Amino acid sequence: MNEILVPAPKLLAFCTACFQKLGLSAANARLAAENLIFANLRGVDSHGVIRMKIYADRLRLGGFKAKARPKVVRENQSSALIDAQHGVGQVAASAAMKLAIRKARKSGAAVVAVKNSNHFGASAFYTMQAIEHGMIGFAATNSGPTMAPTGGREGRLGNNAMALAVPAEKFPPIVLDMATGAAAWGKIFVAQQKKTKIPATWALDKHGAPTDDPNAAADHGLIQPFGGYKGYGLSLLIDILTGVLSGGAFSTHVRTLYKQIETPSRISHTCAALRIDAFIPLANFRRRMDEIIELMHSCPTAPGVERIFVPGEIEHETEQRRAKEGIPLNPELRDELRALGDDLRVKPPF
Amino acid sequence: MNEILVPAPKLLAFCTACFQKLGLSAANARLAAENLIFANLRGVDSHGVIRMKIYADRLRLGGFKAKARPKVVRENQSSALIDAQHGVGQVAASAAMKLAIRKARKSGAAVVAVKNSNHFGASAFYTMQAIEHGMIGFAATNSGPTMAPTGGREGRLGNNAMALAVPAEKFPPIVLDMATGAAAWGKIFVAQQKKTKIPATWALDKHGAPTDDPNAAADHGLIQPFGGYKGYGLSLLIDILTGVLSGGAFSTHVRTLYKQIETPSRISHTCAALRIDAFIPLANFRRRMDEIIELMHSCPTAPGVERIFVPGEIEHETEQRRAKEGIPLNPELRDELRALGDDLRVKPPF
Repeated sequence: MNEILVPAPKLLAFCTACFQKLGLSAANARLAAENLIFANLRGVDSHGVIRMKIYADRLRLGGFKAKARPKVVRENQSSALIDAQHGVGQVAASAAMKLAIRKARKSGAAVVAVKNSNHFGASAFYTMQAIEHGMIGFAATNSGPTMAPTGGREGRLGNNAMALAVPAEKFPPIVLDMATGAAAWGKIFVAQQKKTKIPATWALDKHGAPTDDPNAAADHGLIQPFGGYKGYGLSLLIDILTGVLSGGAFSTHVRTLYKQIETPSRISHTCAALRIDAFIPLANFRRRMDEIIELMHSCPTAPGVERIFVPGEIEHETEQRRAKEGIPLNPELRDELRALGDDLRVKPPF
Repeated sequence: MNEILVPAPKLLAFCTACFQKLGLSAANARLAAENLIFANLRGVDSHGVIRMKIYADRLRLGGFKAKARPKVVRENQSSALIDAQHGVGQVAASAAMKLAIRKARKSGAAVVAVKNSNHFGASAFYTMQAIEHGMIGFAATNSGPTMAPTGGREGRLGNNAMALAVPAEKFPPIVLDMATGAAAWGKIFVAQQKKTKIPATWALDKHGAPTDDPNAAADHGLIQPFGGYKGYGLSLLIDILTGVLSGGAFSTHVRTLYKQIETPSRISHTCAALRIDAFIPLANFRRRMDEIIELMHSCPTAPGVERIFVPGEIEHETEQRRAKEGIPLNPELRDELRALGDDLRVKPPF
């Protein structure tokens, strides 16, 4: 594999320094870098430092406004609307979650929507901020149109994503972080290389027909929503709860991360927090979470299955391991980061 | 088919009268009946008057407490916890949604959890109450354990369901109402009768292996969550947001509707309301909803697809038609309702 393992704190320092050179404040640079390293630590490499280069390109060309400050444009006891002013998504979404937590502390529950934002990385990052305050966290984002509604053959919805995080006591928190697409493009590219078929539920060919041929999918095809029309429904509802509700962009008005990189993406997010002890005492809730987790773990397994996981458990175990061993980087990614470091005069940690 | 069409108002009056004879107050009888007729009108016959008999049996045997009154046991500006005291689910969930709406009117957003409740019928019914107040409505419920976690072979989660309703302007509201199971048992029974295979994603056999044989599924098998582990994750999170958060029953502690019918089911629900004009002006939002609906409708279609729908659209059109033509009842269901009417001395409308 030719992978090397880089200690997370070193990679974090490198990314932070790059973001500062790209014009972010020290605090915002650290925040954006933390979000990427968070994803790498948890094994979600698709949302980790692999995004450094495109973020840097967008910061340099104006697709992300380095100096933008999220602005609260409307506020109520339990709700708020933030205009991200085309800044880095991580900065706006963290501000939104922080505000939701502050409001939920008083009222029990709060929802904060964000317009005019950009790619915000791993959704779980924001929801886990709520956990530390004895709350359940929710975060959702829309994204550039890459999926068709059920029955369609043109991108009208993003691979919109949502996450929920819930604290337990002796077990790590349950963290469900899911996109509404049936598969990531990366998996389809792997099947192309290996010349294997893909499940017919993953992608559509260019005519809008389901295909098990990864080449047909890659030739102007589309990812399918997961779980058929239910995944389509969820993706549409996420677009409504983020883009339509915030007064920002939705559906075809949102731009994808890798196209028109000099132009803001106009992505929308929504974060929410629910204070657990507004319902039942937190200690009681945590014990009940342990119990439901144990009920999943102890379920008799199907043939060939060794162990049953709850959402976020695999990521947690990866995080424990990678925090010790380091984050694996392949040669291509190292080259990309080294070139970026050279450009910005930041020394890479490898 | 031997179906007859019964005018909805007559069927509503019949069910209301039956519920009154079974001990419900006039208002609660009407509410429970409205929920069932709502489902039938929208073509969701699985949640319509087909449930009258089991509801009646449970009311007579104590599984539903006819005289129970939902009690608010904890309250904050934007949150509340209701103890349904083992009454009819429709009564408790309507009270929860009403309270969420009242709170969201002041604060922007509110969440109300319900414990010690029972089967509440179609989730969309509650979410659509929020629409009339210029709000987005959310409702979720857990249910008796009929699904395994991914990799398991024993029921540890209900076919838990959730709904979201959002108002538009010239189009009917978008209403996403979905269970987390891949298919209803009814569809598997139909495949048994027709001796056809089922998709391998629908069910597990008694050993926990996916099966395309409807007979293997029906022989102590289980329904699979929709969309693989994502559906499992959603089902588990719904159980947490309802059963764990409310202090009520969850997972294997919840009873299914058709077993131990003399015993309360201990189902939990959660309802939430989000006031749209706490974010953007309602008229503006409604126009934006029309636009996103048009973007779905106008998407070029895949081969063989005539038309693209948004969630709730098929149900809305069925409702328009059945409101005029009547609700179809097959001979078996007519016999069942007639027998119930005879028992309770209520004259059936056919």
